[in-house]
Amino acid sequence: MIGERIWLEKDREYVWHPFTQMKDYENKDHVLIERGEGIFLYDYNGKEYYDTISSWWVNVHGHNNVRIKKAIIKQMEKIEHVNFSGFTHTPAIELAERIINLMPKDLTRVFYSDNGSTAVEVALKMSFQYWKNKGFDKKKNFIYFENSYHGDTIGAVSVGGVQGYHGLYKPLLFDSFISEAPNCKKCKYNKEANSCQLECLNGIEKILEENSETISGVIIEPLIQAAGGMHFYSPRVLKKLREVTKQYNVHLIIDEVAMGFGRTGKMWAFEHAGITPDLVSISKGISAGYLPLAATIVTDDIYNAFYDDYNKNKTFFHGHSYTANPLACAAGIESLKIFEEDKLLEKVKETSEYLEESMKVFENNEHIENIRCLGLIAAMDVVKNKKTSEKYDSKIRIGKKIYEKGFEHGLVLRPVGDTIYYFLPLSVKKEDIKEIIKRTQDVLLGVL
Amino acid sequence: MIGERIWLEKDREYVWHPFTQMKDYENKDHVLIERGEGIFLYDYNGKEYYDTISSWWVNVHGHNNVRIKKAIIKQMEKIEHVNFSGFTHTPAIELAERIINLMPKDLTRVFYSDNGSTAVEVALKMSFQYWKNKGFDKKKNFIYFENSYHGDTIGAVSVGGVQGYHGLYKPLLFDSFISEAPNCKKCKYNKEANSCQLECLNGIEKILEENSETISGVIIEPLIQAAGGMHFYSPRVLKKLREVTKQYNVHLIIDEVAMGFGRTGKMWAFEHAGITPDLVSISKGISAGYLPLAATIVTDDIYNAFYDDYNKNKTFFHGHSYTANPLACAAGIESLKIFEEDKLLEKVKETSEYLEESMKVFENNEHIENIRCLGLIAAMDVVKNKKTSEKYDSKIRIGKKIYEKGFEHGLVLRPVGDTIYYFLPLSVKKEDIKEIIKRTQDVLLGVL
Repeated sequence: MIGERIWLEKDREYVWHPFTQMKDYENKDHVLIERGEGIFLYDYNGKEYYDTISSWWVNVHGHNNVRIKKAIIKQMEKIEHVNFSGFTHTPAIELAERIINLMPKDLTRVFYSDNGSTAVEVALKMSFQYWKNKGFDKKKNFIYFENSYHGDTIGAVSVGGVQGYHGLYKPLLFDSFISEAPNCKKCKYNKEANSCQLECLNGIEKILEENSETISGVIIEPLIQAAGGMHFYSPRVLKKLREVTKQYNVHLIIDEVAMGFGRTGKMWAFEHAGITPDLVSISKGISAGYLPLAATIVTDDIYNAFYDDYNKNKTFFHGHSYTANPLACAAGIESLKIFEEDKLLEKVKETSEYLEESMKVFENNEHIENIRCLGLIAAMDVVKNKKTSEKYDSKIRIGKKIYEKGFEHGLVLRPVGDTIYYFLPLSVKKEDIKEIIKRTQDVLLGVL
Repeated sequence: MIGERIWLEKDREYVWHPFTQMKDYENKDHVLIERGEGIFLYDYNGKEYYDTISSWWVNVHGHNNVRIKKAIIKQMEKIEHVNFSGFTHTPAIELAERIINLMPKDLTRVFYSDNGSTAVEVALKMSFQYWKNKGFDKKKNFIYFENSYHGDTIGAVSVGGVQGYHGLYKPLLFDSFISEAPNCKKCKYNKEANSCQLECLNGIEKILEENSETISGVIIEPLIQAAGGMHFYSPRVLKKLREVTKQYNVHLIIDEVAMGFGRTGKMWAFEHAGITPDLVSISKGISAGYLPLAATIVTDDIYNAFYDDYNKNKTFFHGHSYTANPLACAAGIESLKIFEEDKLLEKVKETSEYLEESMKVFENNEHIENIRCLGLIAAMDVVKNKKTSEKYDSKIRIGKKIYEKGFEHGLVLRPVGDTIYYFLPLSVKKEDIKEIIKRTQDVLLGVL
């Protein structure tokens, strides 16, 4: 067996990690993960870590899940992959049927792709082409929100509002309208989420009023802007957005990549608002965290705008080689069976209540504010001074310090900026939550 | 067991297939694939089809490969996935090392992603940001070629030259320079590929001469423009492009997504030209056709332009949740072991010579012209009149007729427009080739 040291040197020699300033690892190693089991990751020396972020929000039933493994092995005995144009296969069909059965009745069609970025690109391109196919040639712009994150391909970046990730690429991006983001836990109008007049949406209404002729769609992360800082907002915002997008004849595109598959307590976060979007992008949890897979779900209205004689040039010419990969679909089917048979969403209701209750322990911490919870997601902001909400100097990189201290305590904490969050697997148990919170307290004690 | 009919009705009800006018399937079914074995696909009724296009150019060692399956199962016992930021794992490291060992010595770093589109987006964004990080703020455009295809996300479409796929999206695309495409088998200057003055590159030299200050890179598919019509060109073109891109200080980005992993007889198609690109995008064959995976390989020069103190803002902020998925990497490692242990490229030399020889049988067909071969890729154009090169009326969709007739003969032929091609798995045997050619003759006899 090659020693850990050698692997880590090879990592340094050959690998460029995503979202990483590699110089940060000049004198420090990446953690070499060897295996996983349930909520735990184990490094090469057997050290155990709570995976509190579900391996970038993908893992659902824990690592090394016996049922998912078996489903993939079974599918490998049949067909591992075949092009999904001209051909079809039962894993893709069954998964599509199961997803549609979990969606509001007007969402009827599944278009597969490989990751969150492509699921968003497909939604944007479909929305754009829909209007062309219908004769609305002017409709070409999108509205997105400050702090939004929808992926890293150029189309997805064009509707991304995190300046640090996206600002640089401006010359490559298509023109879009940016709208003020709702942020109910830090409302700039000092209103209450349940009684406000949705003042934060006045801006987007104005954009729509003045430009709806050129606007194709509005894209938003439902209820939580995740990568942009775990900003929570009320379902009322989505309800209102559904109303105004209908009123001004533009699509509502919901990016469920992070929130979907039960993470917020409902299968889809937009369900909290009781709405039906025109297009929904899903990925991450779709394969239970096993394999790359994504899909864009659309209404009959969207689908029908592309359905015509070939020579009418209305076809959606988009595809990826591994579209609807049978192994990933098999994992997806088994995962949804587990949801059903284990009544997983009911269990999540219980654990998420426990999580919310447990988070109260941080209320007394003089460096923690703005604690918020939804389903198995919880977040809190680290501040230098709670009274004034003064932040730590960004040069200190306080989030990074917490991240590194977390490892010492066997905890994968990966703050977004100065925001600590949990994004727990749906299989998490109360005793896990208890231990995770306890260790987080120790981490904070050690850093702040 | 659910009957075939029911599955096909469900397919029609829930699934939107890629690159497909779904109305084409109003009264016709997709082929329901149940299993694969070696070069064969089997439908739900056990009917056997030669997979002559390697399931969209991804399959390498045939379907249901025992070694790849075992490698995936073994990896599933350890860790199926963990985020690749902050963490690393041996499958990603070993695969990166193996890939780098197969590249020219100046290509030293692997950045993983999920599919060909993302591998191209990463290359474009890296090239763009490289110049920003180096202080060349004006460099923001790319040069691409007529008929080129680099993927379907907006960045990849922006450098795509297939009007039918890409033209519609123009308002969403960033500005690029389009250059005349080399096409040595149908040279518009009536020159010979080995003795010409590379007249087809005069245009790009002029673009570079006049605009190099604003140009970031040139992107090209090496030796064959695949999806754009299987247009072949000489390695001399790549050599010259390497020279002029160096001369004018712009990157040369080689998109090896389709051609890589031995398909042209060498591991990478650009090796035929003896050049070292600045950035190389790979995917498809990387996982032997099992799972979505891709990578962008770069020089130290590129890597070093991003390597600096965090606060200098030079980080490449790009990533996908399933980046470097351990299961896909495990398949990739095992695939490269098979290349090595089975001396696969030597075998390909033999089978590709046999393929080239066998293709001669079509020379006498009065509707076939422009037969061309490279490695295990072969292509030929279907024409109405060979003397005048007159094409069939596009409304007839002759390629589609051949495609459908192919199924009757147990053959997956999937023409690009009016061009029939083979894109054979590297495991193909001479007797397979013999039978495939024979059946293709029967198909042509039945259609033309």
